[in-house]
Amino acid sequence: MTTTDPVAILAALIRCPSVTPEEGGALDLLQSLLSDQGFSVDRLPFQTEGRPKIDNLYASAGSGGPHLLFAGHTDVVPAGDEAAWSSPPFGAKVRDDVMVGRGAVDMKGGIAAFLAAYARCVEKHGRLKGKVSLLITGDEEGPALDGTVRVLDALDQRGEKFDACLVGEPTNPEMIGDMIKVGRRGSHTCTLTIRGTQGHVAYPHLADNPIRALVPMLNALMDPPLDQGSERFQPSNLEVTTVEIGNQATNVVPAEARAVFNIRFNDHWTAETLVEEIERRLAAAAKDTSLRPGREAIEWQTDWVPRVSEVFVTHDDHLIGTLMRAVESVTGRTPDLSTSGGTSDARFVKNYCPVVEFGLVGQTMHKIDEQVPLADLERLTRVYERFLTAWFAKESPS
Amino acid sequence: MTTTDPVAILAALIRCPSVTPEEGGALDLLQSLLSDQGFSVDRLPFQTEGRPKIDNLYASAGSGGPHLLFAGHTDVVPAGDEAAWSSPPFGAKVRDDVMVGRGAVDMKGGIAAFLAAYARCVEKHGRLKGKVSLLITGDEEGPALDGTVRVLDALDQRGEKFDACLVGEPTNPEMIGDMIKVGRRGSHTCTLTIRGTQGHVAYPHLADNPIRALVPMLNALMDPPLDQGSERFQPSNLEVTTVEIGNQATNVVPAEARAVFNIRFNDHWTAETLVEEIERRLAAAAKDTSLRPGREAIEWQTDWVPRVSEVFVTHDDHLIGTLMRAVESVTGRTPDLSTSGGTSDARFVKNYCPVVEFGLVGQTMHKIDEQVPLADLERLTRVYERFLTAWFAKESPS
Repeated sequence: MTTTDPVAILAALIRCPSVTPEEGGALDLLQSLLSDQGFSVDRLPFQTEGRPKIDNLYASAGSGGPHLLFAGHTDVVPAGDEAAWSSPPFGAKVRDDVMVGRGAVDMKGGIAAFLAAYARCVEKHGRLKGKVSLLITGDEEGPALDGTVRVLDALDQRGEKFDACLVGEPTNPEMIGDMIKVGRRGSHTCTLTIRGTQGHVAYPHLADNPIRALVPMLNALMDPPLDQGSERFQPSNLEVTTVEIGNQATNVVPAEARAVFNIRFNDHWTAETLVEEIERRLAAAAKDTSLRPGREAIEWQTDWVPRVSEVFVTHDDHLIGTLMRAVESVTGRTPDLSTSGGTSDARFVKNYCPVVEFGLVGQTMHKIDEQVPLADLERLTRVYERFLTAWFAKESPS
Repeated sequence: MTTTDPVAILAALIRCPSVTPEEGGALDLLQSLLSDQGFSVDRLPFQTEGRPKIDNLYASAGSGGPHLLFAGHTDVVPAGDEAAWSSPPFGAKVRDDVMVGRGAVDMKGGIAAFLAAYARCVEKHGRLKGKVSLLITGDEEGPALDGTVRVLDALDQRGEKFDACLVGEPTNPEMIGDMIKVGRRGSHTCTLTIRGTQGHVAYPHLADNPIRALVPMLNALMDPPLDQGSERFQPSNLEVTTVEIGNQATNVVPAEARAVFNIRFNDHWTAETLVEEIERRLAAAAKDTSLRPGREAIEWQTDWVPRVSEVFVTHDDHLIGTLMRAVESVTGRTPDLSTSGGTSDARFVKNYCPVVEFGLVGQTMHKIDEQVPLADLERLTRVYERFLTAWFAKESPS
């Protein structure tokens, strides 16, 4: 396989059925390709008790500074209804210059483009002056417990330092060149439990229906909005994702109500100030007895998930500027510098070095017939090649 | 067994483990006792498809008018944790003049008292001038699909007519003589389904969280209260008994929300006007987009249960007056004429004749160590005896 050809690399990667948590041969393939390119390759499997083992890969070429990290994942979401695909999800069939396959854009395509870009750089300019590493996880689409976060920790303990990181996730809403992601909102999740008193619906004075407290408490979570957004970020947003009571009897007032909510928060907040605000709202609403006349404040508790993703925004002019110019010169478009959308593994990387994200067009990700136009793959390869050349050029005297 | 002794009858009935839907020998025992007293006894089993068969009993003595019906049930709720009982739940053990057993007050005790009262009447005065019937069901504590409602229908088709009915349910909150029930609130149950649009929590503009519509809609159900009560009735009351979303993923906005609510309604309403009011409130709240800025009214539907219990109140001076005077003369107390509490099989009887309810003290019903003081059982027997004598005395020339 010619490693300067992203199409061949992507086709081979798609044919590895690496649905989380299966490695599926995808990391083995990368190990082989990277070794051929002179990378030293480590595999870093991790396992959380009670969960399947996750395989990860870390590869480095060159030495000294500066040190650039490319981060990505080979695991993919399930194919769903395979019969609904126009060609097999792990077949990598090309028709009308479009390749169809699970992971085509999210994000085996990004990995293929980076490998090809690196090979082209080396072919043209010889070894880059510094060090290039790849951190490729098999646990981005899953719970992300044993992937990037643990590999970075292990590398940190080894003394590995990075100057910047490029994540190859699909960032463009419609066309290559639309959007570079320079940060992400934080994410925090909480379970609210409200305890009332069980009883018979015909004797409501002997019961205390927790749903009568739940309604104003949920209202207080959503109203007023947390903020109106900030210079770099969309507004923070809270969504109640479920309410569970679990009472089958229509003549029984339930004893307990549970609700789960997730907050995507911007740089108006830290996890700490956010939790304070939410607890303040809930405490006030728990005293609202408009639907529970004559009662005391209801008994309630919050259980926040132990791991929170903090909001971040990257300030690194060389990293962002080099990537912007690479995008502009290849696509003729000026990308938005955005912090929109969900979380990615960039939330882990940002604790170690400045991080930006740029990849393919995300429209078909996670869907039936996930696909990438071969022209997009070539454009992304060229963006990465220009970025690699220019990013190392500044730092290197050569 | 001496049929003038309610204690012996009750002990024998409690020893029949007639947990719904099991007959448990209780109706067989009654059939034997009633036959001995000269009643003609019919068994009327019914079965709804997919459910266990339910046995019921109908017995009559005498002929011509007036025709008094005594209604009750031998089925009982489960014993729960038998180890927590001070004596076996189906043992009918007497200690300190209190009999312990499942069904002691709800309502094998009421049946035992009525049988003994009838036997004493006949012993003193000979046959009553008219007709006395008993309708004893085995499906009052269950779904009540194949019990009183179906027996009454079958009897109606046979041409049986009743002038009045006494239901022997426990009606007294604390002491025999506290309360006669002369009506009941209605009961209606509805499932509310709200359909939004599923999506990812990080892209709320692409989703439409049905919980954002659920909160104001539930609020509208509970606020303002339906009414402040009426001359004869407590306020109508609505309780939301459950909310179900069933979404496990904390990063997913759910597509649908369901809530179930039950309304106990008084004579301000009929089922029809009540449904109109609720639908009006929901329609208005569905347009409340305060938590869903810029959205359309949410899509929703209600599914009301097919069978509703209508509110009723009994106006029969002879029936109520005779029972009041019997209570007063035996207990020295003037009973409240109440419409409080849950539903009973009186809701079915009221479609055929005036109906009142009077029985034992309800405090221990459905609980561990359900129990009846033997003195209460004797007092109730005397109340029933006086009532029988006086009710038939007015109508009869003798």
